[in-house]
Amino acid sequence: MSKYLAFDNETALDYIKSLGLFFSEDAQLSCYEFGDGNLNLVFRVIDQANNSIILKQALPYARCVGESWPLTLDRARIEAHVLQRHGAVCPDHTAKVLHHDSELAATVLEDLGDMAILRNELIAGRNFDNLGYDVANYLAITSFYHSDFYLDPQNKKALAQTFTNPELCAITEDLFFDDPYRECERNNFPAALTEQVLQLRQNAALLCVVARLKAKFLSSPQTLLHGDVHTGSIFISSEKTKLIDPEFGFFGPIGFDLGSFIGNLLLNYCAQNGRVKEAPKRRDLHSYLLNTISTCLQQFEQQWHTLAQQHGRDLALKAPGYIELFLQEVLQDAMGYCGTELVRRTIGLAHVADIAEIEDQSQRLLVQKQSLQLGEQLILNAKSCRTTDDFYQLIISFVH
Amino acid sequence: MSKYLAFDNETALDYIKSLGLFFSEDAQLSCYEFGDGNLNLVFRVIDQANNSIILKQALPYARCVGESWPLTLDRARIEAHVLQRHGAVCPDHTAKVLHHDSELAATVLEDLGDMAILRNELIAGRNFDNLGYDVANYLAITSFYHSDFYLDPQNKKALAQTFTNPELCAITEDLFFDDPYRECERNNFPAALTEQVLQLRQNAALLCVVARLKAKFLSSPQTLLHGDVHTGSIFISSEKTKLIDPEFGFFGPIGFDLGSFIGNLLLNYCAQNGRVKEAPKRRDLHSYLLNTISTCLQQFEQQWHTLAQQHGRDLALKAPGYIELFLQEVLQDAMGYCGTELVRRTIGLAHVADIAEIEDQSQRLLVQKQSLQLGEQLILNAKSCRTTDDFYQLIISFVH
Repeated sequence: MSKYLAFDNETALDYIKSLGLFFSEDAQLSCYEFGDGNLNLVFRVIDQANNSIILKQALPYARCVGESWPLTLDRARIEAHVLQRHGAVCPDHTAKVLHHDSELAATVLEDLGDMAILRNELIAGRNFDNLGYDVANYLAITSFYHSDFYLDPQNKKALAQTFTNPELCAITEDLFFDDPYRECERNNFPAALTEQVLQLRQNAALLCVVARLKAKFLSSPQTLLHGDVHTGSIFISSEKTKLIDPEFGFFGPIGFDLGSFIGNLLLNYCAQNGRVKEAPKRRDLHSYLLNTISTCLQQFEQQWHTLAQQHGRDLALKAPGYIELFLQEVLQDAMGYCGTELVRRTIGLAHVADIAEIEDQSQRLLVQKQSLQLGEQLILNAKSCRTTDDFYQLIISFVH
Repeated sequence: MSKYLAFDNETALDYIKSLGLFFSEDAQLSCYEFGDGNLNLVFRVIDQANNSIILKQALPYARCVGESWPLTLDRARIEAHVLQRHGAVCPDHTAKVLHHDSELAATVLEDLGDMAILRNELIAGRNFDNLGYDVANYLAITSFYHSDFYLDPQNKKALAQTFTNPELCAITEDLFFDDPYRECERNNFPAALTEQVLQLRQNAALLCVVARLKAKFLSSPQTLLHGDVHTGSIFISSEKTKLIDPEFGFFGPIGFDLGSFIGNLLLNYCAQNGRVKEAPKRRDLHSYLLNTISTCLQQFEQQWHTLAQQHGRDLALKAPGYIELFLQEVLQDAMGYCGTELVRRTIGLAHVADIAEIEDQSQRLLVQKQSLQLGEQLILNAKSCRTTDDFYQLIISFVH
């Protein structure tokens, strides 16, 4: 890493020019940084004809809630390589890597500036019909082609080694499965939630399921995950859906990404209760989100099943009925992880803008109570579901 | 590996002398090779006072049923390092490594020549009261201290990388979970078993469980396994029990080793039906084997439970009730893997001497039918068991 130096606008531009790959030699280039600066620098380099690319560079530290701690630059390599592997099987829904330099922890990416970050769109109440279907396809295709159903075991083991990502996994292990369930200074919730939080921490059945989900997160390298599929990692337009930022990628349980995604839709669902006063508009948003979840669950299962039947290469895993059994467990895991996402985004360290930015404090508290309770119920009941419709019914039984 | 050269008696002796670690300079040393020569060379080096050590060297190929194929020398590194890690937490039941040289694929080990290989002893009808208890402790202690309950996730992931063992795992994947369940030229069973074999291969419920067991073998790095706990990998005396030969070691599902061990006891159980004509003697042997299995299951569970409660370091996994739930699943896995061991040792490539060396062909066939059927039933019924006693009852319901 001796070559590493954090870019500024000028050195970023020099670097892009020196690569000589993206613009003609006499192009008039400009460059500006527009990342949030917490974990990464993000530059846009643009020529006189408005052609542009993105240069993303990892910083050797992370800032969060004022705190600063060192964070491996290796995550830039992981992120670029996950995008490349996912892009190779699902180019439609994966941001394209144009160049990567591990020593500089820098990646050149296609500019998706014509699209919008999904979280902001959902907060603003905008809908995208393609969302559930596209994300389901992204998750099914990328997870199938990196699973034991498709990859030769020796290749998969070699790949899993290169995607070992202990530092970023440790963040998830702590924030998802540990902190919210015990006294921890990183937690962050209003005093008015204390009673509900204490009850959660005394619910032995729930803690037992959380333990199981954590054990599976630790020791179930089923596929190469994105690792951080929240609605801030998704670019969307009415025509396209593209995933970005898989720096938490590693070989883990397939249900984790699906659960994270649905969890973020449900966080937005709860948030709309505190954001939208007009009942018909709120109903429309809710109905959109539930339809998206239903589509996503069904399409994920169908797509995975079709891929496994048509392209599965492990003969033992093609035993009649096994794909169905496997997918049932993946969906149960997903609902469990979905529940932990709701819990940790409500009472843990990192909140979502959907809820955190509700200005009315009492409205926000009602939303937080709902999201915490919904998370709890999903964790407790995930194992009793057998079909995607069971899951859908489970969700609507607690949000309606 | 450029330094690698296979030893002969003379160069083996020179190597041991050159290390200068084990004998005095003026010792009168002799050396002879006594391995079966299929996979490894095994030398005993001995001085005038009868002090001795073992020098084991991996060969760059494996011979089996006349066939010869290249096999990674890296397995010597894996074997030595598994013994060292297991020995660090369970020295009583792990053969001691005195020296290891990865380039030569050579390991110097304590000489256990005062003990006997368990398989030969069981075939000869000799009993060891300590067997079930000792092996249970070995399996519980080594698997607990390399599990997520004890190891820090970052350390565990780094360890799992160094114990990635794709070539030897591929042998298990093929021989345990694939070959016996389909037409394959490596399979080996008498024509008279054909009908039973064909029925097995058409049993959809069974194939589905085998798929699940294979998936778990592929993607469930719960602990650092021995990987090959058959009765030929165990040295025994009336005082001591020591495990050897973990060249198949890798991070895998905890139940695999336990199931392999019990499977080998059951193979001997079936074999005694074809070996011992006198009913009372046969009853005694059977009763000894069943008691050993019962002791092993109970002690494994109790020991693991105690270790997890007293020395478990992951707070989430210490949730009330989770250890019990986890162990229940480990035992279900174990019974499933036990079943696959019975099946593959009866109709797959590699048989056990307990059965293969029964001279009377019709007696041998009856034994094979029983071991195949028992394997089938254990695979089918493992998931319905909840306690160690359920497992014990399951076993005796099919052997009595």
